[in-house]
Amino acid sequence: MSSAEPLLYERVAGLVAGQISSGALRVSERIPSVRSMSRSARVSVSTVVQAYTHLESLGLIEARPQSGYFVRARLRERLPEPPPRQIRSTRPRSIAADVLDACREAIQRTDLVQLNMACAPPEASPNRRLNRLIRDELRDHPNHAGEIVLPPGDYELRRQVARRAVLAGAATNPDDIVITGGTMDAVTLSLGVLCKSGDTILVESPTYFGVLQAVEHLGLKVVEIPNHPARGIDVDAIRGAVGGQRLAAAVLMPNFNNPSGSLTPAEAKRDLVSVLTGAGVPIVEDDLYGELHFGAGRPDSLRRFDTQGLVISCGSVSKTIALGYRVGWAISPAWAREIQRAKFFTSVAAPTLQQRVLARYFASGGYDRFLTGLRRMLAESAERFLDAIASAFPTGTCVARPAGGMVLWVRLPPGVDSMELFRAALECRIGIMPGIVFSAKAGFRNYIRLNYGCGWSPDVAAAIGTLGRLVRRMST
Amino acid sequence: MSSAEPLLYERVAGLVAGQISSGALRVSERIPSVRSMSRSARVSVSTVVQAYTHLESLGLIEARPQSGYFVRARLRERLPEPPPRQIRSTRPRSIAADVLDACREAIQRTDLVQLNMACAPPEASPNRRLNRLIRDELRDHPNHAGEIVLPPGDYELRRQVARRAVLAGAATNPDDIVITGGTMDAVTLSLGVLCKSGDTILVESPTYFGVLQAVEHLGLKVVEIPNHPARGIDVDAIRGAVGGQRLAAAVLMPNFNNPSGSLTPAEAKRDLVSVLTGAGVPIVEDDLYGELHFGAGRPDSLRRFDTQGLVISCGSVSKTIALGYRVGWAISPAWAREIQRAKFFTSVAAPTLQQRVLARYFASGGYDRFLTGLRRMLAESAERFLDAIASAFPTGTCVARPAGGMVLWVRLPPGVDSMELFRAALECRIGIMPGIVFSAKAGFRNYIRLNYGCGWSPDVAAAIGTLGRLVRRMST
Repeated sequence: MSSAEPLLYERVAGLVAGQISSGALRVSERIPSVRSMSRSARVSVSTVVQAYTHLESLGLIEARPQSGYFVRARLRERLPEPPPRQIRSTRPRSIAADVLDACREAIQRTDLVQLNMACAPPEASPNRRLNRLIRDELRDHPNHAGEIVLPPGDYELRRQVARRAVLAGAATNPDDIVITGGTMDAVTLSLGVLCKSGDTILVESPTYFGVLQAVEHLGLKVVEIPNHPARGIDVDAIRGAVGGQRLAAAVLMPNFNNPSGSLTPAEAKRDLVSVLTGAGVPIVEDDLYGELHFGAGRPDSLRRFDTQGLVISCGSVSKTIALGYRVGWAISPAWAREIQRAKFFTSVAAPTLQQRVLARYFASGGYDRFLTGLRRMLAESAERFLDAIASAFPTGTCVARPAGGMVLWVRLPPGVDSMELFRAALECRIGIMPGIVFSAKAGFRNYIRLNYGCGWSPDVAAAIGTLGRLVRRMST
Repeated sequence: MSSAEPLLYERVAGLVAGQISSGALRVSERIPSVRSMSRSARVSVSTVVQAYTHLESLGLIEARPQSGYFVRARLRERLPEPPPRQIRSTRPRSIAADVLDACREAIQRTDLVQLNMACAPPEASPNRRLNRLIRDELRDHPNHAGEIVLPPGDYELRRQVARRAVLAGAATNPDDIVITGGTMDAVTLSLGVLCKSGDTILVESPTYFGVLQAVEHLGLKVVEIPNHPARGIDVDAIRGAVGGQRLAAAVLMPNFNNPSGSLTPAEAKRDLVSVLTGAGVPIVEDDLYGELHFGAGRPDSLRRFDTQGLVISCGSVSKTIALGYRVGWAISPAWAREIQRAKFFTSVAAPTLQQRVLARYFASGGYDRFLTGLRRMLAESAERFLDAIASAFPTGTCVARPAGGMVLWVRLPPGVDSMELFRAALECRIGIMPGIVFSAKAGFRNYIRLNYGCGWSPDVAAAIGTLGRLVRRMST
C-alpha cells in the first residue's frame, strides 16, 4: 500500500492533521503559511504545497483567496455523539435467531454495498506477498496437507505473536500463547475454560453480537455494563456489578469496542483491571482491533495492568490481513495449558498452512508498514463517512467518533426502527447491521452499525445518501 | 496411487482374498489351481500366476511343492480377540489431564516411531494434486486471504459432500450440510446444539478420547455402553440404557470405532437407530473413518436407517487426504440451521482456501481411485502388524481384527500397566496410546492402541519387536 518511509509531503500533512486532531489547531484557525512551514519542516515549498493540497482533498483544510489555508469547519461538527446507555440485565434474552440469520445471510450476499461487515475489502490485504509465502510454503513443505500442528500451535508463529505482544505493553513468551481458529474461537475456548453453565459473566453494552451468542451457546448469563462511545468502558458500573453478584468472568473490548469504536483510556483500564482482578474475576480481552488505532501509538492490552495473571488476551489477523485464514490466539500464562486442551478436544487444531504462512509473514517484516497504510485508509474513510452522514441524515442523528477499528455506531432519530431500515436498505442493495443484535436485551432499536472499513467510493457515497433518505422518511 | 480400474491380476487376487476373508477358504485349504482359475476367471495363466505371487507376498497363501497353493496358517491365528467390556458409568470421571497432555505432546514429537497417531503418513496424501489445486485457487482468487466463507460454507464443497453422501446409503442435499473445522468440530457443535450442561449422553466404551474430553468440556455426563471389537455397538446395552434415564444424545462410531476398529453390521445399525430414535434420542454419528473399509463396499451411515431425521452425521477428509486442512462437515436436515449458527458464533467459519481447494479436488475426480489405493495400503499394513504382534508379544495378548480404519486395539496380558508401557516406550522413541484414555472411567488399563496407518517399514518392525520385549518383561 505505501512504502516503508512516509513521503516528505505525507510527513508534513501528518504533522498538520495531528495538530488539528489534537485540538492544537481549531476550526477556522489559520495554519502556517507555505513559506513558514517550508522553513520549520525543512522541506521545499513545493512539498508543502503538495501536503496542503492533500489535506484539502481530505476536507481537513481549505484555501481562502489571498489569506492562506484554514482548518475547515467540517459538516460533522454538527453531529452530536450518542450518550451511553444504562442497560442492565441479569439474564440474557435471546436476540431473535431469525434476525441474526438474516444478518448473516446479508453478509454473504455479493450484490450489496456491504456496510454490514466490519472489515476492509479483500483487495486491501497484502495478497501478493501472502500468496508468494504460500507458494514458498508449498515448496518447503509439499506434504503439509497431511501434517497437523496441534495446540499450542506452530512455535515460530507463537514466537512472532509474543514478539508483537510487547507493542501492546505486555511482554509474554511463546509458551503462554495458544493458536486458535480466530479471535472468537479464542474467546469461546477461554470462556469454556473459565465458566460452567449457569455462571454469570460481565459484558459491555453494546458489544459484538457474536460474544452474546457464544455466551448463550455456552449456557451463561450476562450482566451488561455501559460502553460509552467517547469514554469507553464504564468503570463505576463495573464496580457496582462486582459488588452485586458472583461473576465467573468478564469479556471486554477496551481497544475499539465493536460497535461503538470507543477506546478505553489507560487510566480506566488500570482501574477496571484492579477492580475485577481484585475481586478474583478473570478478564477475557477481545483485542481484535487493537492494531487499528488512529492515535499515535498502539493502545495497551489489559494485560499491561494485570498483576494477578487474570487477563486472557485474544487476537488475530482477521481484521488486518487475513479474515479468511481463520487463525488467532489467546495469550495467558495462567490458562494456556487449559486452553490448549480445550482447543485440542473440541476442534483439534488450527489449519497447518495458514499457521506457517503467518509465521513467515510476521518473520519477514513489513506488517507494521502495512498497518500504517491500513490505518491511514481507515482514518480517512471514517472522516468521509462522518461528513457524508452529517450531510445526508436528518437532525437528531448522532454518531460516535471512532478512535480506531472500522465501524461507526449511529443513533437514528427516536422512533426509527433499525430493523425496518435494515429491510428497506436490503431492498436498495445496501447491507447494514441493526442495533438490536449488540445487546442481550435487544435494546439499541434505533441504532445501526456501519462499516467504513470498505473505504470510500461512489457506490458507498450513493449508499449513504440512500440510507439518509430512508431514515428521513422513517423519522417523519 | 493406482489407476481407476483394478488390473486383471488384482481382480483375481481380490477374489481369492475375499474368499479367505469371508471364511469360504480356510487355513490350509487348497485354493483353485492356476489352470482352473484361469478358466473360471477367464484370464490367462500368467495373470493367475501373477495374482497368486502377489497373494503369497502378502502372506495370505503359500505354495507347496507339487501340491499347488494353500491358504497360509498365519501366525496371528494364534491371537485371540479381546472380549467386550461391560463398563457403565452414570457420570464421567476425568481422565487425568496430565496423561492426555503427555499423549498430545508425544504426538507432536518428530523423533518417535509414531504408533500413537491414527493417520497415514503425510507423504501418502495426494500432495502434488492438492498443491496444484492450491496454486489454481491462488490464481483464480488472488484475494482469498481477505475473503470469508461463512456457515453453512462453500456451496460447491457442500454439493460435493452431498454427492458423496449417496455412497453411504443416504442421499442428502447441500442445504443440509454445514462445513466445520473438522469432524470433532462438527461433533462438538452438534452436542452444543442438542444438549445443555448437566445432560446425560450415551457413548461407546471404548471410544475416542477426544469425544470424552469434549463432553466433559461441555459439562455433560455420560453413560457408556460396550463396543465389541468383533461385533461393534452393543444394541442390547443401548436398549437398557434408553430405559434407564433421559438421554440428550448418543455419540456413536458404527463405522470403525476408534480404538477397536469394529464395524457395526447393517442389521445392528437399523436396530440401534430404531431404539434410540424411537425414544427420541438424537444420534451424532462420527463417520470419520467410513471411507476406510476393508470390505467390498462403503458401510452405510446411520442416516440410512433414520426415518425420524434424528441422526447428525459428521465427517471430514482428515483421515484420508488432509489432516492439516481442518475442514469437515455435519449432515442434518433437522439441525443444519442451528449448527450453522453455533459455528458462526463460536468460531465464525472454516478456512476459505481449504474449503475451495477441497471442492475443486472432489469435483475434479480421483478421490475414489485414491481411496482404493489407501485402503489397500491400510489392509496390508494391518496384516503385517497382526503377524508381527503375534510373533513379538507374549501369550495372553489379544488383538481386535479391524474391519477398517487405521488402528489396532491390543489387550496386553493381565497386570501389564499400559501407562508404564507408554513411558517405557517413549524412552525407546516409540509412541503408543495407553488404553485408559478411551473410557470415561479410565478403564482399559492393560490395553494399548497402535496406529498401522503409518504403513510397514523396518523402523515399525523394530518398534513392534521392542514393544513385545517391554510387554514380556512387564508381564513376568
